[in-house]
Amino acid sequence: MINRKRKGTNAERELVHLFWSKGWPCVRVAGSGSIRYPVPDILVSNGLKPVAIEIKIVGSGYKYFSRKEIDDLILFSSKFGAMPFVAVKFSGSPWLFVSVENLVETPHGFSVRVSEGEVKGMFFEDFIDLVDSLS
Amino acid sequence: MINRKRKGTNAERELVHLFWSKGWPCVRVAGSGSIRYPVPDILVSNGLKPVAIEIKIVGSGYKYFSRKEIDDLILFSSKFGAMPFVAVKFSGSPWLFVSVENLVETPHGFSVRVSEGEVKGMFFEDFIDLVDSLS
Repeated sequence: MINRKRKGTNAERELVHLFWSKGWPCVRVAGSGSIRYPVPDILVSNGLKPVAIEIKIVGSGYKYFSRKEIDDLILFSSKFGAMPFVAVKFSGSPWLFVSVENLVETPHGFSVRVSEGEVKGMFFEDFIDLVDSLS
Repeated sequence: MINRKRKGTNAERELVHLFWSKGWPCVRVAGSGSIRYPVPDILVSNGLKPVAIEIKIVGSGYKYFSRKEIDDLILFSSKFGAMPFVAVKFSGSPWLFVSVENLVETPHGFSVRVSEGEVKGMFFEDFIDLVDSLS
């Protein structure tokens, strides 16, 4: 459990560095996953539009976001005035950014897999471009 | 030092609760004060305009914000698209919110004291109203 938490924190830090390297201010939210409020893992902005991101790292197979995680992400984003996204890191692959609208609900929770072996998302540079184009 | 850090964290949490009680989503920034990036202590939004806030609790006398703290707050805010504010809690008084433009530079750093015994700021409800009126 502690190991998983540390892995999650390291993944969040990796994304934070990635965004700052592009000049986009990015913060990790303290206590996300443990506090009572529906807060995302990280908040980033291109200066015009904030983006709230929930993160998951995937060792093998697929990981699911719980309904509560996604509901909280949508609730926070609507109140904050941010765009809700998830970022998923599959082992050995670059970060994949997926809009909450593109998540697929399954009996296990929300998945980034739209069909067998297929995901619908964007890599980092395309995500940056998308946010710029929407703001 | 640990005690001071804990006091600071508790003060941040108090503000976080205060904003959420008004329905404004508010987060504490992980690692503020220790990481390499110029991040504020808390981020809050009324849904239209984010506000970046640097916090100080004051036991007795006046406390100063360093030039770096204020420069970082302004830099982050301009990149994020947020309004830069400081929030100061004097012992036994309610939170006081001060715009960075109203801080006074002294040989010791930036102060919320504009003249002997006089501060220029807003209490919580007026701060809420101001942000709403500016966004």
